[in-house]
Amino acid sequence: MLKRRKERQTGPLEAAKETSQLYRVLARANQIASTTELDDLLREMLDLIITVCGANTGTMYLLDKDTNELVFQVVRGDTTESTLIGQRISVNKGIVGESVQKKEAVLVEDLASDPRWYGPIGDEKNQLKNAITFPLLLRGEAIGAVQVFNYTHAPLQLMQFLGNRMTSEYEKAILLQKSEEHSQRLQVLISLIAQISSTLDRDQILSLIIDEARGLLNAEASSLFLLDKENNDLVLHLSKDVHKTTLPPLRIPADTGIIGHVVETGEVVSVKDVSEDKRHYKGIDEISGVNTESLLAVPLQIPNVVLGRERGTTEAHIIGGVEAINKIDGFFDENDTELLSTLAKQAATVLHIAQLYTNADELFLNTIKALVAAIDAKDPYTEGHSQRVSDYSVAMAEELGLSPEIRHQIRIGALLHDIGKIGVPDSILSKPDCLTPEEYDEVKKHPVIGANIIKEVRLLQDELPALSQHHEHMDGKGYPYGLRGDEISPIARIVAVADVFDALTSNRPYRDAMDVETALDILRKEAGDHLDTQYVDTFIEVYTQGKIQPQERKLP
Amino acid sequence: MLKRRKERQTGPLEAAKETSQLYRVLARANQIASTTELDDLLREMLDLIITVCGANTGTMYLLDKDTNELVFQVVRGDTTESTLIGQRISVNKGIVGESVQKKEAVLVEDLASDPRWYGPIGDEKNQLKNAITFPLLLRGEAIGAVQVFNYTHAPLQLMQFLGNRMTSEYEKAILLQKSEEHSQRLQVLISLIAQISSTLDRDQILSLIIDEARGLLNAEASSLFLLDKENNDLVLHLSKDVHKTTLPPLRIPADTGIIGHVVETGEVVSVKDVSEDKRHYKGIDEISGVNTESLLAVPLQIPNVVLGRERGTTEAHIIGGVEAINKIDGFFDENDTELLSTLAKQAATVLHIAQLYTNADELFLNTIKALVAAIDAKDPYTEGHSQRVSDYSVAMAEELGLSPEIRHQIRIGALLHDIGKIGVPDSILSKPDCLTPEEYDEVKKHPVIGANIIKEVRLLQDELPALSQHHEHMDGKGYPYGLRGDEISPIARIVAVADVFDALTSNRPYRDAMDVETALDILRKEAGDHLDTQYVDTFIEVYTQGKIQPQERKLP
Repeated sequence: MLKRRKERQTGPLEAAKETSQLYRVLARANQIASTTELDDLLREMLDLIITVCGANTGTMYLLDKDTNELVFQVVRGDTTESTLIGQRISVNKGIVGESVQKKEAVLVEDLASDPRWYGPIGDEKNQLKNAITFPLLLRGEAIGAVQVFNYTHAPLQLMQFLGNRMTSEYEKAILLQKSEEHSQRLQVLISLIAQISSTLDRDQILSLIIDEARGLLNAEASSLFLLDKENNDLVLHLSKDVHKTTLPPLRIPADTGIIGHVVETGEVVSVKDVSEDKRHYKGIDEISGVNTESLLAVPLQIPNVVLGRERGTTEAHIIGGVEAINKIDGFFDENDTELLSTLAKQAATVLHIAQLYTNADELFLNTIKALVAAIDAKDPYTEGHSQRVSDYSVAMAEELGLSPEIRHQIRIGALLHDIGKIGVPDSILSKPDCLTPEEYDEVKKHPVIGANIIKEVRLLQDELPALSQHHEHMDGKGYPYGLRGDEISPIARIVAVADVFDALTSNRPYRDAMDVETALDILRKEAGDHLDTQYVDTFIEVYTQGKIQPQERKLP
Repeated sequence: MLKRRKERQTGPLEAAKETSQLYRVLARANQIASTTELDDLLREMLDLIITVCGANTGTMYLLDKDTNELVFQVVRGDTTESTLIGQRISVNKGIVGESVQKKEAVLVEDLASDPRWYGPIGDEKNQLKNAITFPLLLRGEAIGAVQVFNYTHAPLQLMQFLGNRMTSEYEKAILLQKSEEHSQRLQVLISLIAQISSTLDRDQILSLIIDEARGLLNAEASSLFLLDKENNDLVLHLSKDVHKTTLPPLRIPADTGIIGHVVETGEVVSVKDVSEDKRHYKGIDEISGVNTESLLAVPLQIPNVVLGRERGTTEAHIIGGVEAINKIDGFFDENDTELLSTLAKQAATVLHIAQLYTNADELFLNTIKALVAAIDAKDPYTEGHSQRVSDYSVAMAEELGLSPEIRHQIRIGALLHDIGKIGVPDSILSKPDCLTPEEYDEVKKHPVIGANIIKEVRLLQDELPALSQHHEHMDGKGYPYGLRGDEISPIARIVAVADVFDALTSNRPYRDAMDVETALDILRKEAGDHLDTQYVDTFIEVYTQGKIQPQERKLP
């Protein structure tokens, strides 16, 4: 072991003084340890070590086991700290390297004459004369070192104790920091999940996943692949943050690259350097414009989803995968894997449910469109009538600033407004000439017949008046009930305007289709008595804006 | 301050020996501190304190500031540890109380003669003679005390240092424990969210929320209230774990109790003792059978949900609230509030989306049922026909063990199988007597007409053959295409059996409805040539099981 620099004085008084000083140092160490702020902790502990040996400068290094380098972690005293922090020196040379490798303190009384000393990395002004260097030990392993310069005495036991204390507090602070960081990332993940869950719009969900995965994982880029089973392709969606231009989705064969493996097997793949993974497909980098180094790829796996009693459960399956590319600081770790897997699982579920909803919604709309078109087509004069009335009514609803929910009610109500024609004999509906009064009475039943057909459908109650009241007049002279003014539901008053306009601009057995201006004139005349003036104005406004496309006039 | 028990010997050799012993103690303290396991830490640190003063027994207490009591946290030495841990003594009396209140060490050389000593709480065998007691200080505050018995010397500075070290390590270990616990609870929350998100079944979602909220919050019970706006009621759903019997949902007026306040205002309410909160409605306890003490109530608040382009966004609104009742260990804290609020928000979103999906699905099914019924009703002889064919076909699909998805396709395909009748003149459909060959040719167009109506509906492609092929025969003699055997889609072969059976058991213009046995005989005869033998067998099996309810025979 090393010799003490000065012989100790051990008279009773000196001993008491030393003991009292020692406890002051220990108390100070306890005080410093009470912070959980890592940087403060290391700085103050290093300052204390500098103080106990009368030094003026000191450095703390941590060992990077991956590279066998010592990294400047804390520098105190008269040096240019900012230029040193983060710099690296090899553990295989120099005084610090020797101290770490031998796990022993090294005391150098004259740095200038020591062959191991390769000069100060810091500021030349320091005039570093001597140095004490000792390893930081954690459970017998050297995890770094402390080096102090220009000491006046060398209480090595105390310094080593403080160094070990520093190590132990460092470890605990890191543990706490990591744990708190983990909590924070989980909280971010939860708020992402909430965001993703509150949209049923597929494109928006995809964008959210891609952009947020990148942020959550501190990655340079991220991308999402959706499996197209029909073509056995993976369709690539890129992070918009990185690729500002909106490219059309790009495709790669389903068995290509690491992502192909992930989508096929459902495995998670984390690679530190893709150039060493033969599965990596460089074509993806060319497409995305990102030079992939580290990569974390997880499957987009839909779990079993319970639809409800009659509809049973949909089967778990993989619909694609998500990649985080190039961890900005280091490599993807277990926490990253956990976070991305969880995000991907939840995102897949949300995508699936959004698809289920969108499908159910589309199925309803397209089926009634098809059925209504078939009913209209029974009479060549009314072909496409309900669809046009629906389009006109929705354009009016938009102009009126009605909510999307009400707009949708108007769309559906207008589509269905004439379905009562199912109950009118087609001999009358398709009669090539004018109707007798008796036949006209039959036709006038269609609002009530239509309402009767859908009145048991719980979720069409708001649309019902579009069917039952679209032939009522503002002056009470309409049918079937002779309602007047506000007694007629707004949806029926809107549909009535669109209905009359489409009838006027369509051929009839007894007359040709009118041109639009003539039809609009008639609407203006009917306003107040028959039609609601407000909605006639709305219709004309919408027409003027070019949002009404009447059917082309054709001779019957 | 207190006097040393023995005069110290301070010769050079003794001093060196003492110093060396001291560093051994300090090294041991560092070693002990390297654990993050709280119980080990406290035990080993107390042992070290016992050792440095040559004592044989020791106790560590923590101060409970709420009750001003000292709680036995660790007991070491010859005592019955298990009986003491968790016991409480007042801070206002005794030696430990004095040490804590004065924030000073108390040294008693003869316990028996000390008026503050009120006898050992532990085992009598200990024969406790003397004691050193000192406070555990954290940033100047006493947070507990250490007491050791039967000491031989009193290195008070060292003991106080070790006590402070113990305190500081205790604090860090608690911080880490809490942080890790928080992470764990967030992970549990995330897996709960995943579970809730993967079902669209409302009742299942409600059960999951109620049961899992209780576990997540370590509460005695939990309940969920849904707002019924029509009746201005809150409908109570209870935790099934606690209330094994399935009660019908109970109702309270919407402005009742703490939950009423939460649902109305959207505020979170946490109450330590509901008996001191005048908003608490005792009636709820009577209904639920739980005696509420502490309560945490959060709103079920649906965020804005994006439905997609045309459908816009649904508005944020409150649909009810969730309560956690009686925290099992202590009171609900900020973490509990965060967790329950997040769970409730996500649950509300999922409930909303499940409702949107269920509504869209119900809307489609009920609308086509209504339209198909109207088409059937044009001919009194076919009233209810499509619905019955659908019911029979679904019963067959269940017997065949087909998946819910295929069953649903069969349900829809069968409902729609005859919609081509829209295109058949109703003079023919409702003709009271037999059809001419020309008229029959018109009728035979309905499979193609039906398929043409829905062929553009992307999501009805699997159902299409039920419309186009339900009049094909196994021997190729059917229409419109003359397909044979396996060329005919299974859905069409299933629907054909149900269709023929319903036609046979219905009145026709030219004959009365047959009884079921006659009809089944005809099915058996048609098996192989016209109908698929396998599905005829299935139909008969299903009929035998009582799952086919044919329409009642009535004379026309």
